[in-house]
Amino acid sequence: MDSGLTKSRIEALCDGVFAIAMTLMAFNVKVPSRSGGSGAVSLAAALFELWPQFLTYIISFVILGVYWIGHHNQFHYIRRSDRVLLWINIIFLMFLTAIPFSTGVLGEYPNDQIAVVVYGSNLLLVGLLLYCQWWYATSKHHLTDPGLDPAIVTMAKKRILIGPCILLLAIAVSYLNTKFSILIFAVLPVIYIIPGRIDQHWSPRE
Amino acid sequence: MDSGLTKSRIEALCDGVFAIAMTLMAFNVKVPSRSGGSGAVSLAAALFELWPQFLTYIISFVILGVYWIGHHNQFHYIRRSDRVLLWINIIFLMFLTAIPFSTGVLGEYPNDQIAVVVYGSNLLLVGLLLYCQWWYATSKHHLTDPGLDPAIVTMAKKRILIGPCILLLAIAVSYLNTKFSILIFAVLPVIYIIPGRIDQHWSPRE
Amino acid sequence: MDSGLTKSRIEALCDGVFAIAMTLMAFNVKVPSRSGGSGAVSLAAALFELWPQFLTYIISFVILGVYWIGHHNQFHYIRRSDRVLLWINIIFLMFLTAIPFSTGVLGEYPNDQIAVVVYGSNLLLVGLLLYCQWWYATSKHHLTDPGLDPAIVTMAKKRILIGPCILLLAIAVSYLNTKFSILIFAVLPVIYIIPGRIDQHWSPRE
Amino acid sequence: MDSGLTKSRIEALCDGVFAIAMTLMAFNVKVPSRSGGSGAVSLAAALFELWPQFLTYIISFVILGVYWIGHHNQFHYIRRSDRVLLWINIIFLMFLTAIPFSTGVLGEYPNDQIAVVVYGSNLLLVGLLLYCQWWYATSKHHLTDPGLDPAIVTMAKKRILIGPCILLLAIAVSYLNTKFSILIFAVLPVIYIIPGRIDQHWSPRE
Repeated sequence: MDSGLTKSRIEALCDGVFAIAMTLMAFNVKVPSRSGGSGAVSLAAALFELWPQFLTYIISFVILGVYWIGHHNQFHYIRRSDRVLLWINIIFLMFLTAIPFSTGVLGEYPNDQIAVVVYGSNLLLVGLLLYCQWWYATSKHHLTDPGLDPAIVTMAKKRILIGPCILLLAIAVSYLNTKFSILIFAVLPVIYIIPGRIDQHWSPRE
Repeated sequence: MDSGLTKSRIEALCDGVFAIAMTLMAFNVKVPSRSGGSGAVSLAAALFELWPQFLTYIISFVILGVYWIGHHNQFHYIRRSDRVLLWINIIFLMFLTAIPFSTGVLGEYPNDQIAVVVYGSNLLLVGLLLYCQWWYATSKHHLTDPGLDPAIVTMAKKRILIGPCILLLAIAVSYLNTKFSILIFAVLPVIYIIPGRIDQHWSPRE
Repeated sequence: MDSGLTKSRIEALCDGVFAIAMTLMAFNVKVPSRSGGSGAVSLAAALFELWPQFLTYIISFVILGVYWIGHHNQFHYIRRSDRVLLWINIIFLMFLTAIPFSTGVLGEYPNDQIAVVVYGSNLLLVGLLLYCQWWYATSKHHLTDPGLDPAIVTMAKKRILIGPCILLLAIAVSYLNTKFSILIFAVLPVIYIIPGRIDQHWSPRE
Repeated sequence: MDSGLTKSRIEALCDGVFAIAMTLMAFNVKVPSRSGGSGAVSLAAALFELWPQFLTYIISFVILGVYWIGHHNQFHYIRRSDRVLLWINIIFLMFLTAIPFSTGVLGEYPNDQIAVVVYGSNLLLVGLLLYCQWWYATSKHHLTDPGLDPAIVTMAKKRILIGPCILLLAIAVSYLNTKFSILIFAVLPVIYIIPGRIDQHWSPRE
């Protein structure tokens, strides 16, 4: 390990940031105020009006789940850390902690094309940093086990890149129809949840 | 373990989310503002007016404690993890992180039947996901120790289902009287805190 | 351990709650708004006006530090856990997570006697639960090592009780002068920071 | 270890506080409100106006990353803990948790010299406490391995002091030009990210 910064230490910081970002996101959805303008509006109606915020919250939470799994899958194969890997992770976390903000923007402005671009770009950057980490760690088996099967490396690369490609598509589509972009965001995690070919290399281990 | 996502990693994320949700809930109770409308109102009166929020905070905190214990009790017997278990946990956490929100709704609208339904449904979903996890992990001893006593599996199932049943009752009762529903919410954790038959299988181990 | 709830699991939840409560407390101190009423007021003056909030923040942070050390010192001797210990900890955490709220109340109303009583009572309850845990765990060496020196048990009991006694004094004094109460709160951690007789039993171990 | 407060326990608290401070900082950047005064302003313009807050967020996040790495590098060499080290850490965390506040102040008032002084002083105090910890732990190899090379101790001391020196410079420069101070803040982490002579002692270890 580089200067005592063991793999497990990086994982602990990442797990912490993931847990907090996931929990804080729910705090973007504000409890409707009793002292709201028109007293006639019922609580049910006030909660129903929040549906874009609930929807973006659910989408972001599940995508964070996908990234969390992806991050850990990588660290299963990463054996060592160095200064560059460390900083890739810190930049990764920097964009990760911005997801609650861009989720809030999209929840507040679900029909605004700019909001879709901001949200999509944020997720895109997180996905690219995940790719960047895998590429850096596996190039010449730099930080991984020398016996790591190159087929797994390549398969994982492709799998990680699916996300950024779909996100680019969602951003492009937003110029035509923002509702369709949000649909694409919602579909993204489904693709990762469905078991893929790479699972044959991983699955039921003790 | 499935692809490096060890049991302990899932537990770390869950512990983090539990700790943050518990601590953030207290932040729904806002410090009364000095610049409030009527300067004549004393701090004591302003704090006293917050009692529904204190009450719902206490109830939610103790129920989160019950769920935390339940989650860990399950992981005591779960030996392996797979992709499905992982996603059950992520969905479990998604509804868990919504508890501070629905607690805030109930604290703000303690007499509104909709608020009781929202709060009860949220707790119900968390309880059902806990049941779902136990059912999935123990079916055919899929992810547990093959030697696990089927009596424990069945007893735990019954014990986990007590919560959702009581929550359904509280939701039903809300159509008659919301105050009585809140009383049922308050009684719920007491049932779990009292030692049950299952404790004979667990208790004083080193 | 009782049903998989190992000592370390309780410690992880507690460490998480301590870390979050400590960090969130700083969020009670709001950045002065640019769009504030009188544009003539300088930032320096606006920040200076926040001094009661800075002061209470510092006092609470250091007291949380004292409690954190106290909690861990106890777990150094506690070997087992059971359902009661678990619930003592959950109730302990419940009052702990309220400290940012009562700190906010005191910071907003430093001259209000009610605020001093609220703050002091909150700290008192946390301190008493810490005492309660030590009393429960050590009675008949229930959850501790049988070889634990009774002198340490008694000495620790006395040391833990110093806090609640001083807090009772501060609450009583608030009926005369709230400023003097706040001074007593500030002195409290100093007493614990200064090495005591109990350190002879603990100190420089590997 | 002193009374059960193992090194790893301190690290867990610190990692937690770092993770939360990093994630919460992003919450200082508020989602622009839909119900803002002038409806004519576009979301793009509203987001663009937030640029000082994004900039200070990025600077603070990267500096927190530098401090996190520095803290862990020290604990790689620290073998024991005692009461003083514990309190150095608690005070270190106290100033660390204030960074989101002072970042918010600088983001809100990027042209105000007071904001630059507040921000710089906060970072300076954190840096000095890090130095203080290293000085305390290594003096007479008090808490470190007796075999620790004195050259590493000295080199690390110099490296840690670079930060406070640059921060003092930035504070001084703020009396002339606050924009230049912010530029110096931005350059600070770059100096630490670039590999230094000390890396020869650390780097590619298993």
